[in-house]
Order: sequence, then structure tokens, then C-alpha cells
Amino acid sequence: MTYCVGLLLNRGMVFMSDTRTNAGIDNISVVTKLRTWNMPGDRFLCLMSAGNLATTQSTISLLEERGLASHDRKPKLLTQPTMFQTAKLVGETLREVISYTNEGSDGSSRFLGSFILGGQIKGGRPRLFMIYPEGNFIEAGPDNPFFQIGEHKYGRPILVRTYEPTMSLEDAVKLLLVSFDSTIKSNLSVGLPIDLQVYETDKLETGYRQRFDDRDPYYRQISEGWGDALKSAFDQLPAFSPAGVER
Amino acid sequence: MTYCVGLLLNRGMVFMSDTRTNAGIDNISVVTKLRTWNMPGDRFLCLMSAGNLATTQSTISLLEERGLASHDRKPKLLTQPTMFQTAKLVGETLREVISYTNEGSDGSSRFLGSFILGGQIKGGRPRLFMIYPEGNFIEAGPDNPFFQIGEHKYGRPILVRTYEPTMSLEDAVKLLLVSFDSTIKSNLSVGLPIDLQVYETDKLETGYRQRFDDRDPYYRQISEGWGDALKSAFDQLPAFSPAGVER
Repeated sequence: MTYCVGLLLNRGMVFMSDTRTNAGIDNISVVTKLRTWNMPGDRFLCLMSAGNLATTQSTISLLEERGLASHDRKPKLLTQPTMFQTAKLVGETLREVISYTNEGSDGSSRFLGSFILGGQIKGGRPRLFMIYPEGNFIEAGPDNPFFQIGEHKYGRPILVRTYEPTMSLEDAVKLLLVSFDSTIKSNLSVGLPIDLQVYETDKLETGYRQRFDDRDPYYRQISEGWGDALKSAFDQLPAFSPAGVER
Repeated sequence: MTYCVGLLLNRGMVFMSDTRTNAGIDNISVVTKLRTWNMPGDRFLCLMSAGNLATTQSTISLLEERGLASHDRKPKLLTQPTMFQTAKLVGETLREVISYTNEGSDGSSRFLGSFILGGQIKGGRPRLFMIYPEGNFIEAGPDNPFFQIGEHKYGRPILVRTYEPTMSLEDAVKLLLVSFDSTIKSNLSVGLPIDLQVYETDKLETGYRQRFDDRDPYYRQISEGWGDALKSAFDQLPAFSPAGVER
């Protein structure tokens, strides 16, 4: 499994992804699921993946391959006029890879994958998409300002309760670390290290990137502090006191 | 779907269950999934169910049917010598119902169900079991002091972080309400009202029971207060401040 989140904020976007990949519980590796591309002053793209690793890696390799003609110096991925067209290209490529891999199989869809794509192209606003195995996609907006892929349930309540579009990028990083820590504590298939990518609106450059492992002092502060913070939040709620329960 | 939790504490047990049942998202009903039996001074049993409603209701009806002979006045469920034997009886009955319903089907298991069983029989200690569709079961202990069935992921992090075996029964009720509220806010298939059953060790009587609906003042205090409490817990954590992220 996997856990990736992309948050759309007024000040930019924050992306976070775990790095655990497994083929069975005794075959675990670390692999990055968060890729970025940047043409300074022109565009920034970030792609996070969940699902079958062969499928998502193939899709990214195809997206990165240059055009057929030798004078084509740029990958197709970086020549789309809009973020919408970029999402469409990613979706089509993903669908093509899945369709090829499943050819001749028994008809049930296997080797599926999905992506969160965020980015900004000069002249446009920052946009965030969730791309499905069928190649279609949805876009984040004020009513659904973040996307999660993979093992999304454990870390969702804190996002639902705490996210604000006006948050600073630093607070958004903190929020995502809490969400990831809750997930990692509950589910073996999501694991450290965690990749972080921050993008500031209109910068059109890659921005801040960091990898958090279990020795990272800030991650440890969050992970250890959140238990105590939750307990004090819990104590702050009014006590339950029915007549029938003796103290 | 469903969400049920049984907590084993030093002072007793607390059971909580939602009441939503659905056959498709446009066919929703309220049905209790929490049943209790009591022979004062002799035993108390509580059974919570998840899965196919026909399966779990059939299982309970079979458990409640009296023996074949007309002079048998007590259901078999209430004549077992130990909680272990009671769990075994529930498991066997569940397995029998599932096996009958799936007879002649294509071999894939359908109409599955599972139970959380808790209770105490005079002379024994309070015991809590999770019973699987195959009829086998596991018991709660110091390392796994609670069981969840159904839509368990959203509400798990708060249980993992806050549960203590030494909690008061009132605090355990508060904890379960927070866990249920987090689940209900994230998932449509779990819904109010919520059934609560509290059992105090060695009382051998049914104890406190309550149903919480959306007008219940205490549930509203918890549901509304938890958002604010979480935000203040979040604010209490140290801020993230890398060199690369501008403020």
C-alpha cells in the first residue's frame, strides 16, 4: 500500500508521500513515489503515485521519453499548454500502460495505479488533480481542497477537522506529518521515510523538498508530541456522567 | 457498513455500535446491532454484529431459540459453562448460517458476518472475543485490549493513542464517542444513532444503556468540541520552519 496527500492552499500546494513498497510482507523496499519537474519561470509539476509499481514507473518513463523526432528536446509532459492538458496526458498514458499489461489476461483489471498531479503553468493558476486507472480525473476546488491516495482512512479525520485554505505552508506541513504519523502507527504497509515537496503559488520553481526519516528531530517531536497533545485535547472535552454509571 | 467497538478495561467493558444498515446507498435503515442478555447474578452477555444483516440476525435468532425439548426453558446461549464455550457456540452458529446461505452458490463466500462478544459468567472474569465468519475467534488481552469491526480505520488512531486499561468507564464512553464521531464525519456508511452499553466487572447485571442521536446534548458537545480541541492540540505542536519555506 501507500499513502500520498496533495493539499491545495491559498498560498500554494504541499505534497507528501510515504516510500514503502512491498510485494508481500516479507519483500519491502524504499522507493520514492513523489516526482517533480521544473522549467524555471515556465512550469512546475509534481506527480505522486499509488498502486502497482511497474505500472506507475512505466507511466512516468513514458511521460519522460522525448518525442520521436531527434530534434525534440523536451518530453511531451513539459510541453502541454495547460495543467488540464497535462492531466489528460498523464491519464491517457496511465490507461495505455494498464491496458497493455492486462492484455490477454482473464479480463479482470490488475496492475492498477493512480496519481495525484499538482502544478502550475505560467499564465494559469495552481491546479491539483486526482487521476484514476481509467485515465479520467477530477480536480480539487474549494469543496474538495485535498486528495489522498492509498491507505487514506486513518489519516483523514485530522485533515477534515484541521485543514483551512488560509493555512501557512508550514502549518500544512505540520498537518500532513500528523496525518502520516497516525497512518504509520496504525498500518504496516505505510512506512518511513516520508517525502515532502512544498510549492509556493506563482514561483514556478521547485521550492522546498525534504525527506523525513525516523531520526529526523522534527518528525520525532510531532510523533511523540501528538500523543500528549491528543490526550490533553481529550481531557479538555466535558466528562460523560450518566446516573447509571458509578464512579 | 458498520462500526462497532468493544473495550476491555480494568473496571469493566464498554460496547458501542452504530445503527446504520444499507442495501445500496438509497436503501438505508436504522437497526440495532448491539444485543444483550442477562441472568442477574449469573451472567451478562453483549453481542455486536457486522456484515450481512440476514446472516447476523439469523445467527442471533438461532442462538435465542430454546432447545428442542419442550421442558428446556433457557436458550442454549445462556447455559454455557464459560465465556469461551459461549464464544464457541456463537462461532459455530455463525459458520452454520453462512455455510447454509452459500450452499449451491459459485463457491465464493458471500453473506458474511462477524461478531464482537463480551460478557462475564459467575466464577469467571470478564472476557471479550472477536468472532470471524469461519467460526473461529480471538480473545482480547493486555496487548490487544479492544476490538473493532466494520469501518474501523478512521476511528482507530484516537483509540491507539488514548486508550488506557485504567480509564474510568465514563472516560471510555467519551473516547468511544470521539472515535465514532471521527468515523461518522468521514464515512456515509456509518450513521447515528449510536448504541452504548456499559458493563461493570462482577456486577453480573446489564448496567447502563443509552442511545445517542444527533439531538443528544452530550454527543453534540463531543462532536462540536472535538474539532476545537484537535485544533488547539495541533497548535500546541512545534511549528515547522525550514530555511527554504518563506513565511
